[in-house]
Amino acid sequence: MTLLLKSDAARAEEWTRLLAEKAPELPFRIWPDVGDPAEIRYLAAWLPPDDLLGQFPNLELLVSVGAGVDQLNLADIPPHLPIVRMIEPGLVDSMVEYVTMSVLALHRDLIPYIAAQREEAWRPLRIRPATERRVGVLGLGMLGKACALKLAEFGFGVAGWSRSRHEVEGIETFAGDAELPAFLARTDILVCLLPLTDATRGLLGAELFAQLPQGAMIVNAGRGGHLDQDALLAALDSDHLAAAVLDVCEPEPLPECHPLWNHPKVLLTPHIASRSRSEASLDIVLDNLRRHQAGEPLIGLIDRDRGY
Amino acid sequence: MTLLLKSDAARAEEWTRLLAEKAPELPFRIWPDVGDPAEIRYLAAWLPPDDLLGQFPNLELLVSVGAGVDQLNLADIPPHLPIVRMIEPGLVDSMVEYVTMSVLALHRDLIPYIAAQREEAWRPLRIRPATERRVGVLGLGMLGKACALKLAEFGFGVAGWSRSRHEVEGIETFAGDAELPAFLARTDILVCLLPLTDATRGLLGAELFAQLPQGAMIVNAGRGGHLDQDALLAALDSDHLAAAVLDVCEPEPLPECHPLWNHPKVLLTPHIASRSRSEASLDIVLDNLRRHQAGEPLIGLIDRDRGY
Repeated sequence: MTLLLKSDAARAEEWTRLLAEKAPELPFRIWPDVGDPAEIRYLAAWLPPDDLLGQFPNLELLVSVGAGVDQLNLADIPPHLPIVRMIEPGLVDSMVEYVTMSVLALHRDLIPYIAAQREEAWRPLRIRPATERRVGVLGLGMLGKACALKLAEFGFGVAGWSRSRHEVEGIETFAGDAELPAFLARTDILVCLLPLTDATRGLLGAELFAQLPQGAMIVNAGRGGHLDQDALLAALDSDHLAAAVLDVCEPEPLPECHPLWNHPKVLLTPHIASRSRSEASLDIVLDNLRRHQAGEPLIGLIDRDRGY
Repeated sequence: MTLLLKSDAARAEEWTRLLAEKAPELPFRIWPDVGDPAEIRYLAAWLPPDDLLGQFPNLELLVSVGAGVDQLNLADIPPHLPIVRMIEPGLVDSMVEYVTMSVLALHRDLIPYIAAQREEAWRPLRIRPATERRVGVLGLGMLGKACALKLAEFGFGVAGWSRSRHEVEGIETFAGDAELPAFLARTDILVCLLPLTDATRGLLGAELFAQLPQGAMIVNAGRGGHLDQDALLAALDSDHLAAAVLDVCEPEPLPECHPLWNHPKVLLTPHIASRSRSEASLDIVLDNLRRHQAGEPLIGLIDRDRGY
């Protein structure tokens, strides 16, 4: 009944401290000090080791240490092994802060003002009311839904799109490939909070940008793999898109001299929009271990077919 | 019963159009085309002309075209002439957007990330939860109160200070000179939304900064005159203050080569936090004219002794 953690040193130290308080009876190991591999029942990892069941024949549950599972090669993980991801309230709160900040920054022309400050130029622009801006959130999971609801409070016209239909009170929702064009045509500020899957990789590309209105703006707080960076640069340079806030890119860090670094229409942050907080996420892991033992439904269980 | 507007060309054009719809019976003049000065009963102006009653002997009401009246020399305006300012919902909404954006930007380290992007450096910083940040709002008028309430929704510990005591549900409030030190000592992010008066000019100076905790940050969305810019530069350069978002400065525009332009800890916007929207503010002006004629209390009446 041992839990093994394979993560970074900071999380290892926090979990050690927290587990001593919260679950002192639970045998706990930190990779690579695995002890008897046959005793490992639960593995919490960002990147699991190769040959998972060869190494840990009695493994019953894999916990992905993050909101996504796109870092996992799902085909390599035995189909009977349940995988859960960690979404905890702190992760949602941080994302709501980041997305609210980014959408307000685009809405209130912060990117042109940053460029103007650099040039020592005083260039006030007309203030537009939030009711004149239409925000579209790609992805209506826990993160997308919470961001859409917060943005609606500011008076933005908010809609959301997801692969399968979701209802969110007060938010217009679109679903599936068939409704994507209508969603894009009504979106002035597009926020990407999708999971990264084969179906969403490169979605933010030339074809999608062409369906947004002239002057649209984007926020990518999903994964770097969602965005075709060359297509973004072309759309910004042709003035079809007006500005972009990017928290993620590919690769990370962005290479030296990449044109996104110093683009006057791009605001770039180093993948800091959100991160699971140890204590809250550990509480959810412990709850999932208890649920697993009791045969109850797991929180954040991955659907292998959807890929998230 | 003529209304005279002395403002910029854009507002003149909008009021002309809107008054034709909303109050076609009201005689309306645009400075300098005043017609018969004896007919002017109401003056809406940012800067009224000199010798107000000499020019307009029958003037009954002065409307300051803005949220503040600090641009007026109150001593030059005859004491019997009521002065009202224009606070309309759009002005509040825009300010809530600007202050929310600015506080989230400081909370989420956007200023260091802008500097890092310029240096092509990928430097993620630790995310702190909003519950670990204490925001303090100076000024609890309509703008300050609305901003404080919105920030509290994000989980920040929010307090407000005002000269006379205000109660705001869910917000800790401090009042008067006696309680200012305690308010400052508990404030990590200070937001200035005070009116500019003799009592508040230069308040954001060395003495106040010294009472903030090490590493505190400020947002000035009040007036340039609130801030001692040299004291701010000294506090940033000594690392006592960590960053500042300034929407206002003195003079505006900031002169060429001023050290605030390119300071890596300063984000500067060109006095765009908020502006009255013509239609809503005109509705309030028309309501005040009606109230004045009916002898009812005026909205936004200035108290000459307080100066706002």
